[in-house]
Amino acid sequence: MATLFKDVYIADGSREKAERVHLLVSKGRIASITSANENPPSADKIISGRGKMAVIPGFVNAHTHAAMVLLRGLGEEAPLMEWLQNKIWPVEEKLTPEYIYWGTLSAMLEMLASGTTCFADMYFEMEGVAEAVLGAGMKAALCRGITAGEPGKIERSLQNNIELAEKYHGREGLITIQLGPHAPYTVPLEAMKVITDAAKSKGLGVHFHYLETEGELRNLGHDPVKYLADTGLLDVPSLTLAHAVYLDPEADIPSDNVTLVHCPCSNLKLGSGIMPLPAWLERGMPVALGTDGASSNNQLDIWGEMRTAALLHKGANKDPVCITAIDALRMATYEGARAFGFSQKGMIREGWFADLVLVNLDKPHYIGVNDENLAAYLVYAGSSADIAGTMVNGRWVYRNGEYPTLDREEIVQKAREAREAMTTR
Amino acid sequence: MATLFKDVYIADGSREKAERVHLLVSKGRIASITSANENPPSADKIISGRGKMAVIPGFVNAHTHAAMVLLRGLGEEAPLMEWLQNKIWPVEEKLTPEYIYWGTLSAMLEMLASGTTCFADMYFEMEGVAEAVLGAGMKAALCRGITAGEPGKIERSLQNNIELAEKYHGREGLITIQLGPHAPYTVPLEAMKVITDAAKSKGLGVHFHYLETEGELRNLGHDPVKYLADTGLLDVPSLTLAHAVYLDPEADIPSDNVTLVHCPCSNLKLGSGIMPLPAWLERGMPVALGTDGASSNNQLDIWGEMRTAALLHKGANKDPVCITAIDALRMATYEGARAFGFSQKGMIREGWFADLVLVNLDKPHYIGVNDENLAAYLVYAGSSADIAGTMVNGRWVYRNGEYPTLDREEIVQKAREAREAMTTR
Repeated sequence: MATLFKDVYIADGSREKAERVHLLVSKGRIASITSANENPPSADKIISGRGKMAVIPGFVNAHTHAAMVLLRGLGEEAPLMEWLQNKIWPVEEKLTPEYIYWGTLSAMLEMLASGTTCFADMYFEMEGVAEAVLGAGMKAALCRGITAGEPGKIERSLQNNIELAEKYHGREGLITIQLGPHAPYTVPLEAMKVITDAAKSKGLGVHFHYLETEGELRNLGHDPVKYLADTGLLDVPSLTLAHAVYLDPEADIPSDNVTLVHCPCSNLKLGSGIMPLPAWLERGMPVALGTDGASSNNQLDIWGEMRTAALLHKGANKDPVCITAIDALRMATYEGARAFGFSQKGMIREGWFADLVLVNLDKPHYIGVNDENLAAYLVYAGSSADIAGTMVNGRWVYRNGEYPTLDREEIVQKAREAREAMTTR
Repeated sequence: MATLFKDVYIADGSREKAERVHLLVSKGRIASITSANENPPSADKIISGRGKMAVIPGFVNAHTHAAMVLLRGLGEEAPLMEWLQNKIWPVEEKLTPEYIYWGTLSAMLEMLASGTTCFADMYFEMEGVAEAVLGAGMKAALCRGITAGEPGKIERSLQNNIELAEKYHGREGLITIQLGPHAPYTVPLEAMKVITDAAKSKGLGVHFHYLETEGELRNLGHDPVKYLADTGLLDVPSLTLAHAVYLDPEADIPSDNVTLVHCPCSNLKLGSGIMPLPAWLERGMPVALGTDGASSNNQLDIWGEMRTAALLHKGANKDPVCITAIDALRMATYEGARAFGFSQKGMIREGWFADLVLVNLDKPHYIGVNDENLAAYLVYAGSSADIAGTMVNGRWVYRNGEYPTLDREEIVQKAREAREAMTTR
C-alpha cells in the first residue's frame, strides 16, 4: 500500500533548507520525493498537508532503559548513590520478565507518541523486550546489561547477550543486538576484554556507559583513552559510549566506529554535569541523543532532549551560535540510527526507510514558518505535542493519539499492576 | 454557576504532599476543598476526576513580550547584537498597534493552552494588549517599555505608562500596571530617578530588565546594589528584576519588595549564562519564572520553564538535591502572582481565586503517581501537553483544545497576516 504525503515540508539533519514536496511511501520506503509544484503521484492513501504539515525522520533514542518507567518517581531529589541504593535497587530487584515486558511496552507508548521510531535499550530479560518491539513494529538496538556480581554472573550474562544476538540480530529488519557491558565500575577490566573479544568474534557492537560522573573519572584508575584501548573497546565493530560527560574532547578517540550518546536531561537531573558537546561536534565526532531511563529524566521524549541540547550548550558556553537546530535534528535522528547499524534510516531520502514523523504546523507557534527556518521552529518552538503520527517502515505505529499496533489500555493496566506489585509488597 | 472538581488531586507550591479532594469553584473563587472520602458538594457542573486528574494553580509568566511571537524565528543562532540590529529591530519597527493587538492574542492562545493564567508583559502600544487581556478574561501585569531615543521619548513613554495605569490598573481584577523602564543600558540614570519618583508617587511597581548578560554587568559603571539604591528602584512599592543572571546572591537586596524573574530558556538560548538560582532560594529571595519573548526562547510555556529550572541547576551545580519540584511549582505559580500584586492567587486554598489548571493524569507517564510524588511527576515527567483545561476566576479560558473566550481562527489568521506584512515589505 502506498501512502502519499501531499504538499508537506520535509526537513532533516542534512538539509540547510526545508523543502515543500510530495512524499510517496511505498513498500516500507520513501519511494519518491517530488516538488509540491508538480502533480502529485497517485497513492492508496493521501495525507494532504497543504503546506501546514511537516515530515521529518523518526527520532532515535540512543540510550535508555525502557522498563525503568516502572521505577519512575521513586525517591526524587536524592544524591545518586542514596537514590540507587535505597530507592531504585530494592524495587528493581522485584522486577520479573513479565513486568519488564509490560514496562517496556508502556515506555513504547510514550516513545511512539513523541516520535521515536527506534530506541537503544540496555536492561535485563531482553527476550521480552525484543518480543515487545517486534509486536509493536518499531525498531530497537538491544543489549543485555552485563554487571559483576556472584561468581559466574558476568559469564552467564554475556552468554545470555550472545544468545539474544543469535536469536534476534537483524530480525525483520527491526532489531540489532549489541553487547552491553554496563560500565567500567561494574565490570572488571579482565572481563571487559572477554566481552570485547566476543564482540569482535561475533561481529557485534558494544553499548557502554562511560564517564557519566566526575567520581567515575576519578576512580577509573586509567587514562580514559588507554582504558578503551586496553580493554579492546576501540577495536569492536562499533562502540557507543553513553553519557561521556567527562571524556575530554581532545582525547584521541576515532570517529569512524565510535558514537557518543548525549543525555542532557538525565545528566542535569542526577547532577552529573554538562558534556562538552560543542567541542565534540567541532572535531566531527558523531553524537546521538538519549533520554536515559525514565527514573532519571523523567521523560522519554527525544524531541525534548533535542531542544535541551540545542539550548543548554549555548548558555553553558555563553555562545548563542553553537549547536544549530540542524545539528540537533541530526543528532536526534540520523546519528543514533547510524550508531546502532540501522542503515538508510534517519534522513528524508528516496529509497531510505519510511521511519517518519508527521508534524502538525497548523498551530499558533508555527506562524511565520517557512523553508528557511523550519528546522529552527521545530527545535526551539516545537515539541512532541505537535506530532500527528509516527510511522515505521511505512506503517503507522502512532496516529492522532491511537496506537494501531498496540493495545494501549491493556498495556497501561498491566504496567500499573506491575508498579503496584513492586512498590507495595 | 458552581463547578465541582470531584475526586481530583490538588498540588501547589506550598504543600509537601498532594491531596485527593473535592474542589468546588463558585463565584470565581475556590469555595471549598473537602476530602475525596466525603460526600461531594452539589454543583451545576461536575468534572469527575476519579483520581486521574489533578488541579494545580494557573501558571504566571512573570516576564514576557507577548507580541514578539510575530518576530519568532527571525535570525536564529546569531550573536545577540547582530540578531537585534539586523534581524529583530528592522522588523520590530514595522509593528503597528493593530499588529501588536493580534500578536498578543496569538501569544495568549499559546499561553492559555500551556496553563498560563497571568502574564507580565513589557512592550509598546499596551492599550491594545490590555483590551486583548480583558476580552480573553485572563490576567496580566502590564507595563510600557520605556527606552531612551529622540529628545522627549522617555518623558512621553513614561506619561503613556502612567495613563495606562490610570485607565487599566485594577480593571475587572484582571490587570495590574507597573512602570517599565527597559534596562540600565537603555535608560539613563537621571531618567531612572524620574521614573522611580513617579512609581512612588503613583503607588506603582516597576518591572525592569537587570543584569541579563556579563557585558551589561561590565558596562553598568556602578555597584549593582548601589545602582538600585541610587536610582530609587529599591524604594518603589514593588520591584521585579527580570533575568538577574549576573546579580550576586550575596548582594544586599531586600526580599520583601523585590522579586527576581528567572528566564532559564531565554538565558540559555541567547548565550547569556545561568543564574545562580539555588543560592537565591537558599537565602529566601522570591524568584518567579518567565519565558521572555518568543523570539529568544522560542516557547511561551511556563511548564517547560519550570522543568528546565528544576533540571538545569542540578546539573550546573552538580547537586541533584537543589531546586525541588515544589520549589519549581511555587516559582511557576505563586511567586509571579505575588510579585505583580495579584493577591489570593497561585495556591489552592479556600477563598483564593479559581485560576486553575486541570491536568490529565490518565497517561502512561503518570503510572505510579500518588499523593507523595505528584509534584515531582508534574515537574519532571509532565508537560503542558497534559493540560485538559485552564480557568481564570472560575471561567474556562481553555478547554480540550478550544478557547471559549477567543476566536482562534481569526486570531491565527490576523497574526499570520501581520507577520507576512512585516517580513515581506
